[in-house]
Amino acid sequence: MANLQDVATAAGVSKTTVSRYLNGSLELPERTATLIDTAIRALDYTPNPHARRLSLGRSDTIALIVPDISSPFFAALVGAVEAEASDMGLALALYATLNCPERELSYLDLVRKGHADGLIFITNHASSPDLSAKINSLPRCVVVDENVLDTHAPKIFCDNRQGGWLAGRHLARAGHRHVLFVGGVDQMVSGERRYAGFVAGMTEVAGADLRIDRSCGPYTTEAGRAAGRAFAAQSPDLRPTAIFATSDELLIGLYEVLGQSGIRVPDQVSVIGFDDVGPLHLFAPAVTAVRQPVRELGQRALRLLTRIDPQPAEKPPSEELLPVTLIERNSVAPPIRPFNRNANSEES
Amino acid sequence: MANLQDVATAAGVSKTTVSRYLNGSLELPERTATLIDTAIRALDYTPNPHARRLSLGRSDTIALIVPDISSPFFAALVGAVEAEASDMGLALALYATLNCPERELSYLDLVRKGHADGLIFITNHASSPDLSAKINSLPRCVVVDENVLDTHAPKIFCDNRQGGWLAGRHLARAGHRHVLFVGGVDQMVSGERRYAGFVAGMTEVAGADLRIDRSCGPYTTEAGRAAGRAFAAQSPDLRPTAIFATSDELLIGLYEVLGQSGIRVPDQVSVIGFDDVGPLHLFAPAVTAVRQPVRELGQRALRLLTRIDPQPAEKPPSEELLPVTLIERNSVAPPIRPFNRNANSEES
Repeated sequence: MANLQDVATAAGVSKTTVSRYLNGSLELPERTATLIDTAIRALDYTPNPHARRLSLGRSDTIALIVPDISSPFFAALVGAVEAEASDMGLALALYATLNCPERELSYLDLVRKGHADGLIFITNHASSPDLSAKINSLPRCVVVDENVLDTHAPKIFCDNRQGGWLAGRHLARAGHRHVLFVGGVDQMVSGERRYAGFVAGMTEVAGADLRIDRSCGPYTTEAGRAAGRAFAAQSPDLRPTAIFATSDELLIGLYEVLGQSGIRVPDQVSVIGFDDVGPLHLFAPAVTAVRQPVRELGQRALRLLTRIDPQPAEKPPSEELLPVTLIERNSVAPPIRPFNRNANSEES
Repeated sequence: MANLQDVATAAGVSKTTVSRYLNGSLELPERTATLIDTAIRALDYTPNPHARRLSLGRSDTIALIVPDISSPFFAALVGAVEAEASDMGLALALYATLNCPERELSYLDLVRKGHADGLIFITNHASSPDLSAKINSLPRCVVVDENVLDTHAPKIFCDNRQGGWLAGRHLARAGHRHVLFVGGVDQMVSGERRYAGFVAGMTEVAGADLRIDRSCGPYTTEAGRAAGRAFAAQSPDLRPTAIFATSDELLIGLYEVLGQSGIRVPDQVSVIGFDDVGPLHLFAPAVTAVRQPVRELGQRALRLLTRIDPQPAEKPPSEELLPVTLIERNSVAPPIRPFNRNANSEES
């Protein structure tokens, strides 16, 4: 079946032109309009029902609120939404909150007062009642990547628990029994689920004979460096033999400090990451990591948004989980020494 | 002298609250207002004149149009503008064009029809009359990173020529005489200047006894892969001994292909990059690169924007160049073999 691109190519114009012409938001010279109409008839093209549906909105503009545009993960997610919006002939207005709750609230006000047809909301910290209330006051919203508790909006996350499970099972199978989990406070659904999955994955292979240390914190490079410094400060005999850094930022900070401390990966410590958006395949050594389906996350968020009717959303809200995959590279090896519960417990 | 943060800390509120309170865009409970007023008096704080000036605009909202939010360089640039806007108590609406001229034009219309007080415009392709005309129709705009010809708006770029010169001089000093320049079509000011500077830097050290091949194209990972494949396909005896990849994306694509082709950096070919925003310090080997002052670029763009009066801009427009620096790491070594003009010229 012909798609928008086929029509655009046949008519010698861009996909955006065809979309906006179809949803009535673009006036065209008669000659161009005729070219498009002819192409549509010739190819028997049926416009994307979602784009057409949403274009019944006021503005053909979608808003997206994201914590930190300079994080590779969020940047890739936003890029995916932008590409999908372009295909649908929709404009996308982006707002970056720096993950600051107050800025989130003022941007939510801006979006509500503004003329966007809907909002894709992404936060990177624990929920608050203020935040939930404002999100619930929007007619059309999708919550992506990190949950906001007590919101009626449909949600799309990656399968954080599966990701943690894959990482835990992988390290346990490599022989690791004393490991360090870095990141993800329990108040964040992503952190809670990644940790629960990680424990389950390790336990499934190793049973109860293991020890999991945890360094909680935000998904930032600085938090990764702090975890790396704390790790390097431990006596080599008592250190965990593997580390699970649960975001690209955490991993980058951790890798920096391990390198500066002369601690070799994977000879002296195994490392596994999460997100796999940054160019981890070029790192020294290339990083084994759980890959988030970041493009699908962005595409499905926008598609879902265009299907929501502006009416009180169902409760409980729908929650869609996208599968993650383990990408094996060169940062995981067998442990440098066998697990000794007693020795490893002394310091704790 | 006390700054916004001092007042915010003393009053126990955020910088954003203080700014928006000061520019009248935020109603506060009397108690909070009193806390801020007291802190301002106690610290003898004078509000940022630019923020105050701009807040006389209609919306306290700035628009930023950027080609590709998922590129590390643009993501970091946007993040810097967002941080500066937050300090000034301004909202920032972002629009990503996917570097598609048509989408740029429709976003420019959106911004003009919208209620932003000003626009920071960033493109990543050669200029067009349509684009210049639309930009000139905006009351308050700054053009950043890449020039748009025939626009009256003030411009802020990194010193592209200096960056090319630093890279060329560095490779020539390492002994390279036959090198490959990847990226930057001449129609883009950044490409033209990086290339001119590169030739000047090499010539300054090596005189006329050198050969510079050039692989023109956009600053994308795919263009980097293509250049890498073409390089790998050459007979080892005829290849350039060093490559200048003039963006992080180009470098990432190039590094991928060199690795897959088993061509070792720097033993078999030296590589130098440009931008240095991505985590090039963690690559195998760590990449020597010209670093762009990406944060300063974003900060100065917003500060400059707040100083523009909405009136016909002066011509010729001002052009500010921010200095770049060479970061030496491990990807440049002496050439694998001496330069032989005749041998190296056979294939061309």
